[in-house]
Amino acid sequence: MILQGEHRRSIARTDDGAGVRILDQRLLPWEVRWVELRSADTAAVAIREMWTRGAPMIGATAAYGLAMALAADPGDASLARAYDTLLATRPTAVNLRWALDQVRAAVIDLPAAARATAALARADAICDEDAALCRAIGEQGLALFRTLHAKNPDRPLNILTHCNAGWLATVDYGTATAPVYLAHDAGIPVHVWVDETRPRNQGALLTAFELANHGVPHTVIADNAGGLLMMQGKVDAVIVGTDRVTANGDVCNKIGTYLKALAAADNGVPFYVALPYTTFDPDTATGADVPIEERSADELTRLTGPAEGGIATVKVTDSPAANPAFDVTPARLVTGYITERGVLDRI
Amino acid sequence: MILQGEHRRSIARTDDGAGVRILDQRLLPWEVRWVELRSADTAAVAIREMWTRGAPMIGATAAYGLAMALAADPGDASLARAYDTLLATRPTAVNLRWALDQVRAAVIDLPAAARATAALARADAICDEDAALCRAIGEQGLALFRTLHAKNPDRPLNILTHCNAGWLATVDYGTATAPVYLAHDAGIPVHVWVDETRPRNQGALLTAFELANHGVPHTVIADNAGGLLMMQGKVDAVIVGTDRVTANGDVCNKIGTYLKALAAADNGVPFYVALPYTTFDPDTATGADVPIEERSADELTRLTGPAEGGIATVKVTDSPAANPAFDVTPARLVTGYITERGVLDRI
Repeated sequence: MILQGEHRRSIARTDDGAGVRILDQRLLPWEVRWVELRSADTAAVAIREMWTRGAPMIGATAAYGLAMALAADPGDASLARAYDTLLATRPTAVNLRWALDQVRAAVIDLPAAARATAALARADAICDEDAALCRAIGEQGLALFRTLHAKNPDRPLNILTHCNAGWLATVDYGTATAPVYLAHDAGIPVHVWVDETRPRNQGALLTAFELANHGVPHTVIADNAGGLLMMQGKVDAVIVGTDRVTANGDVCNKIGTYLKALAAADNGVPFYVALPYTTFDPDTATGADVPIEERSADELTRLTGPAEGGIATVKVTDSPAANPAFDVTPARLVTGYITERGVLDRI
Repeated sequence: MILQGEHRRSIARTDDGAGVRILDQRLLPWEVRWVELRSADTAAVAIREMWTRGAPMIGATAAYGLAMALAADPGDASLARAYDTLLATRPTAVNLRWALDQVRAAVIDLPAAARATAALARADAICDEDAALCRAIGEQGLALFRTLHAKNPDRPLNILTHCNAGWLATVDYGTATAPVYLAHDAGIPVHVWVDETRPRNQGALLTAFELANHGVPHTVIADNAGGLLMMQGKVDAVIVGTDRVTANGDVCNKIGTYLKALAAADNGVPFYVALPYTTFDPDTATGADVPIEERSADELTRLTGPAEGGIATVKVTDSPAANPAFDVTPARLVTGYITERGVLDRI
């Protein structure tokens, strides 16, 4: 990732090696503020209060949190307490438990004096592995993008994405954005249509911020606009991330993804889902079996942003509102699943 | 229409009969303010500055504006000047020219002394005709709604609508909303999913306001949510208005309509377009021939609403943004066109 002209990672050790720094995503894109986490409790707050988000970033932050608890007190009681505290921050995040288990397994049989160093090393490795995995997804997608661009070499490759499956959600590269960054770096003229992604506006706020920092041309659009753009031939591919892909290939992702998949299918535009292989969930049969999280209506009815005189919150509506957070895109609408192991056209 | 518990029309003569009152829609739903228009110039400002909007309301307002010009000066020069001024306010509004032509034709052969009265009478008639037309659309739609409700009589009839094709855009009833109001009044338990309708939020601001005033249960949702709700069986029908239906039945309407039509087709949900017969445009072959208005990006990148301490405008994004205002729903996705003359299943 490139942030303010420098190569960085979304999470990295502090200069003294004892803590980690992450971006406070609640302030983006209006303010770029790195925060240092130096204890398990602070890491837990950062996850729970959504200073950071995205399965890989949550896992990495929790892994370092556990390591920091062991640096303070390497005993079994300390390990158990920090594990439980961190796990409770986002109880449905599968990757959170996985990362905590990785660190615990790396230290549980070690003498107390060796635990903190081993835990930090395992947390570092989790980050390195995630960055490598996202880069591999990017390379698989890059090959697809090259083929798409070759069909119309005289104009930019127009990609549409929804929500934020970028480096802010991972250690580096992102998932859906990884092919975009690699394509841009490879000299393919890529332009991204960024869905605003109501109601939390992760596209307008986070994805657009990432693309701007990397220097990738992009245009924010209302979520309503993608269908028209596809009908007008202005979209060469849609690429999104996913929270879970069920055994039959159904894709659970941010609310509104399904509508873009329908429009893509209706206009012969390829629709890709980028994901690490671990996001496949063979234990859930179909998308209909995935519970849909209903979030606070406030996310829809209030909007906070910079205004004259400082940050303000305005009302969008006083009416009753509903806010389902995810939808299910049927497997039949998916052109390909871009994973670190290759591109699958069916599960 | 019912506003604050009283039966009203969106436009009506003032008590002294010489002017008209309309709602300043720029303030809705936060403030209900009637404004009086007492000259052609004020009527022109009201149209141009979007105090009022919607083809029928624009036509009615312009008709009264022309009548007021003739009350001030019934001469040919006054007539021509007011006609031109009013026509220039929204140059692409077909109904605006139609209404002005109606009033001019009604007075052009009359002696000066008789013109103002005849013009007002014609403007009154235009309003009465529009109200009757919308009521007739409502009755046609009501019959459809009765049939739909009979399939699941034990639960509310769930209707999804996009944007505002309600009484704020017409003299009374609205087009897409007319069947909803008549169904509610007839005792059918109807509930409306109201698309927020980014970027101008006409659903969250205007349609929700109308429904609340009429006492119709409703829930505002992000534009992204409709596909999931249809997949979950929570939508019995989609009904929208339209700016233009081309010779082949393609529907030009607010950006995002096409995505809802795709989701409706994918889930076997009927998708209806409500319109006066005059909105059919036999001179345009297909939707591909309709120019799509690109509006200011500010509509997407800034949001104004009530905040602590008064009205505030917050930034949604500083990124480049595009704002196409309409899209085209192919005729193949339309279940029926609900007109004052009946429901057509094809053009």
